[in-house]
Amino acid sequence: MSILTIERKVLEKNDEVAEENRALLARYGIFAINMVSSPGAGKTSILERTLETLGGTLSVAVIEGDVQTDLDARRVARHGVPAVQIVTRGGCHLEANLVRDALRGLSLGGLRLLIIENVGNLVCPSNYDLGEAMKVVVASTTEGDDKPLKYPAMFRNASVLIINKIDLLPYTDSSILTLRSNALQINPSLTIFETSCRTGRGIDEWCAWLRRKSGETGSR
Amino acid sequence: MSILTIERKVLEKNDEVAEENRALLARYGIFAINMVSSPGAGKTSILERTLETLGGTLSVAVIEGDVQTDLDARRVARHGVPAVQIVTRGGCHLEANLVRDALRGLSLGGLRLLIIENVGNLVCPSNYDLGEAMKVVVASTTEGDDKPLKYPAMFRNASVLIINKIDLLPYTDSSILTLRSNALQINPSLTIFETSCRTGRGIDEWCAWLRRKSGETGSR
Repeated sequence: MSILTIERKVLEKNDEVAEENRALLARYGIFAINMVSSPGAGKTSILERTLETLGGTLSVAVIEGDVQTDLDARRVARHGVPAVQIVTRGGCHLEANLVRDALRGLSLGGLRLLIIENVGNLVCPSNYDLGEAMKVVVASTTEGDDKPLKYPAMFRNASVLIINKIDLLPYTDSSILTLRSNALQINPSLTIFETSCRTGRGIDEWCAWLRRKSGETGSR
Repeated sequence: MSILTIERKVLEKNDEVAEENRALLARYGIFAINMVSSPGAGKTSILERTLETLGGTLSVAVIEGDVQTDLDARRVARHGVPAVQIVTRGGCHLEANLVRDALRGLSLGGLRLLIIENVGNLVCPSNYDLGEAMKVVVASTTEGDDKPLKYPAMFRNASVLIINKIDLLPYTDSSILTLRSNALQINPSLTIFETSCRTGRGIDEWCAWLRRKSGETGSR
């Protein structure tokens, strides 16, 4: 079927470019994560809290992916880190070639951590390798505890799950135990953090993990 | 460019089938809506509240679209209405041919209202006409008030916006005025409802509107 063939070619081409990105990042000793989630799960808020916490202690850059607007890159740039905005103009996910182009706009020497914030979409970005070390999926408590079962590919392809908005848990019908158990059913090797960007809970733990991972990558 | 050509052909073919669905629904006097949102914005909860409220007073059927699982169709079926589940197995949106097949599984005679619940995705379903009378986009307060600006196509292509989870508004940084104003900036002709599935607020108003629209379609 011709459409499937073309789709396979698109994915193969994407994977080739992703491997080039991965090799480039490895050469500079940069740990790169690809943050994915539903729209409004809190990726940008977590990113802002992360930049505040890491402060000047780790050299970080950000690539922002959005369907439209540069609102997120402007939020991030306030924290004084290099940020490149990719606007997909309707595209539902980032692809490796967009990230390759964005990397050309960053000064990579001395960088330790690259955070790529994908388009808010719990389906399409799961298929696209960008050259990251790992995918980090953010799920907020207000989305309900059944999301790992309903959108399994994203949870299967991620290495880390951040359960965000835990401050809102008392006001929802979600159970954090059910959410954790559903996520681990799909992917038993997930590393899980629980965070609230409003109270700051869990952010230190997440940042300590990021710092450790960035150190490991940098010293290789 | 060959991929774009094929994509255009896919959309053209989809639009043809959508028109067939629309003609079929018109023949039976059925008002059909296509509910779209981010994952976890509350489409299924609104649907359940709607079915409770409309009770036996309006003949309703439901088509559920999900990437995986039939959890939603089972939630809906408890309310005693005919429900067909479409599982897209990774597909990020419903297409008109899937809805055509689902319609064959429903007894259309006497039906007044068809609710199609799309895959949770604020990007891809915006391009796909299913043959509905209108798209209804659900945005929850916890997703933040900037979503209409960041995902404009969906808000542009919808006729109705349901702002859900208004009970959580005091616990978020979202402003309902900003959310309304951003949505109306993208699409000034949006009809807007504010609902909470936990308190029931706004559900009666929404159901009265649905009943009126279904009556208008049925009497044509």
